Amino acid sequence: MLHAIVMAGGSGTRFWPSSRAALPKQLLPLAGSGTLLQDTVGRLEGLIPPERTLVVTNVRLTETVHQQLPNLPREAVVGEPCKRDTAPCIGLAALLVLQHDAEATMAVMPSDHVIEPAAGFRAALTQAAGLVETSPGRLVTFGIRPTSPSPSYGYIQQGEPLPTGDGEAPAHRVAQFREKPPVEVAREYVAAGNFLWNAGIFVWRASTIIEALAKHQPECLFRLETIAAAWATPDRDRVFAEEFAAIKGVSIDYAVLEHAEDVAVIEAPFGWDDLGGWSAVARQRGGDANGNTVVGRHLGLASSGLIVHTSEEHLVVTLGLEDMLVVHTEDATLVAHRSHEEQVRKVVTELESRGWHDYL
Amino acid sequence: MLHAIVMAGGSGTRFWPSSRAALPKQLLPLAGSGTLLQDTVGRLEGLIPPERTLVVTNVRLTETVHQQLPNLPREAVVGEPCKRDTAPCIGLAALLVLQHDAEATMAVMPSDHVIEPAAGFRAALTQAAGLVETSPGRLVTFGIRPTSPSPSYGYIQQGEPLPTGDGEAPAHRVAQFREKPPVEVAREYVAAGNFLWNAGIFVWRASTIIEALAKHQPECLFRLETIAAAWATPDRDRVFAEEFAAIKGVSIDYAVLEHAEDVAVIEAPFGWDDLGGWSAVARQRGGDANGNTVVGRHLGLASSGLIVHTSEEHLVVTLGLEDMLVVHTEDATLVAHRSHEEQVRKVVTELESRGWHDYL
Repeated sequence: MLHAIVMAGGSGTRFWPSSRAALPKQLLPLAGSGTLLQDTVGRLEGLIPPERTLVVTNVRLTETVHQQLPNLPREAVVGEPCKRDTAPCIGLAALLVLQHDAEATMAVMPSDHVIEPAAGFRAALTQAAGLVETSPGRLVTFGIRPTSPSPSYGYIQQGEPLPTGDGEAPAHRVAQFREKPPVEVAREYVAAGNFLWNAGIFVWRASTIIEALAKHQPECLFRLETIAAAWATPDRDRVFAEEFAAIKGVSIDYAVLEHAEDVAVIEAPFGWDDLGGWSAVARQRGGDANGNTVVGRHLGLASSGLIVHTSEEHLVVTLGLEDMLVVHTEDATLVAHRSHEEQVRKVVTELESRGWHDYL
Repeated sequence: MLHAIVMAGGSGTRFWPSSRAALPKQLLPLAGSGTLLQDTVGRLEGLIPPERTLVVTNVRLTETVHQQLPNLPREAVVGEPCKRDTAPCIGLAALLVLQHDAEATMAVMPSDHVIEPAAGFRAALTQAAGLVETSPGRLVTFGIRPTSPSPSYGYIQQGEPLPTGDGEAPAHRVAQFREKPPVEVAREYVAAGNFLWNAGIFVWRASTIIEALAKHQPECLFRLETIAAAWATPDRDRVFAEEFAAIKGVSIDYAVLEHAEDVAVIEAPFGWDDLGGWSAVARQRGGDANGNTVVGRHLGLASSGLIVHTSEEHLVVTLGLEDMLVVHTEDATLVAHRSHEEQVRKVVTELESRGWHDYL
């Protein structure tokens, strides 16, 4: 059976002050009708039901996740006691899924991407599950056709083509993975035409990824198995906290994918945006006649190219502004030139170093 | 005896969103230790006691004025039912003062100027009272030596010098009043060296200004006398509302000063700023090493030349900003380029036209 593993542990500091430690990016309604997490789970409707969905998040966020996903069983939300990157997260999810379904295939996906249309995404997952059925030891990834030589993504080089059915997306063996390259190298990749962005979405059999972890990350897997063994016991929380903290954080790409033999990549037959910052949100939402993207109550005089986020109650007035970002929340307001968008993360670092924890 | 008439009915839309219909400029702590009104009354201490001070404001502001000036008797605050410029305000104040002191001399002053040092101001008022004693029919004004050819002020041309005592400021007969001139004309005035800005501060006998109003504004005076006659009766509010509304608004400069024979001007022996906008506030407060003037909790990264006003609770973060104004209040935030400071008034007009009265 096909299961969904939704990774929802990110912190999303690029969206401060809207995103906070207690309400990171994936829990905000940045683009669609619901929060990014709600949209992610909703997108699976008709393909993967709630009882085969697992959301892995940070333990401090589990209550908010329950509130945002009331249709999910409570045991479907796993709260990690600390951050350990994607390999431990995916490995634990695989072990938990295997406890109920030894033949499980799992679709692993981030919770903070914008993907449209949902039908295209579901079709791609189905195609991927088919590729796994054909070759049970296969790891399937999804690649996005680059729209720019971005140095912010990993790249996947397409190798030999794999057979596809009618209306299916192009699928290839992976020739090689490339971590985030310098922009000049990225330019060569884009020019070559057979490099795709790594979307961080994967489909494979749970047993396959466990075998791979046994080979490449045996200590990690051993600790994850200890946690899984305690899952149905009163010791779960203590064991989870102790063992998970002892694992070295590592990404699934680095730990497994880059060493695996049988890896395929499907060229995504859907629109994709990982919402890297406020400008991406503006791109998703579109602008008004003055190129302003506004949420909440705004009055702009001689203002263009703005991104304004506030509430319906708190009025933001802009006067003589160009290409600026104004984000108002109850206890903090950010005003930034859009050329400095990348540095919003630095604000969070600076707040931490000042000990202004109330604003984190 | 010397009485103080403090005019506190202004609306100060240039300080929106800090200044509101219910809390205009003079009721805000923009520059000194207290609000501008509190500083204005405090400046008189030692020269004019509370029982000889009258604050004339808008009827909607009287309660706030009482709260800000708890030492003033309640009858010392007069709430005008509507705005009618300075002549009716001063005329009524003169009539009320004359009810208790037929020989009263009155010092009339705005409530929203920054004046320092207070001792210099008191000395100037004393000097002015002396000029009135010498010539009881005289009207005394105060002039500020211009620092620029500003088109925002009326100008007073100094005529023949008047005798002054030791340590007293230069005093002259007024040759003529000039309303706000175009900047080229203002430049000529400044070059001529004998033109001063009209500070809107006056000293004269109450009976003198009443005689002048009788001559130049008889209808206005008639209605003011009707109001004054009802002052101690249960009809006060009704008569005040009806008669005051029927008066045509006119400034004391236009109504009286420009036609009067015996007018003197004292060159102010004190620093003066009428706080025409946020930049004037920044000038008063001074800036930090980055040229930022900050009130409240602020974190600035790559930010200079800013004016930031917020509370100690609400954090404002600025990132990559130059020469901007950020004013946060509970229900509204203004972000403006400082080159657009003059247009803050337009914001208020625009809010009115949209019917967003909650923010006015």
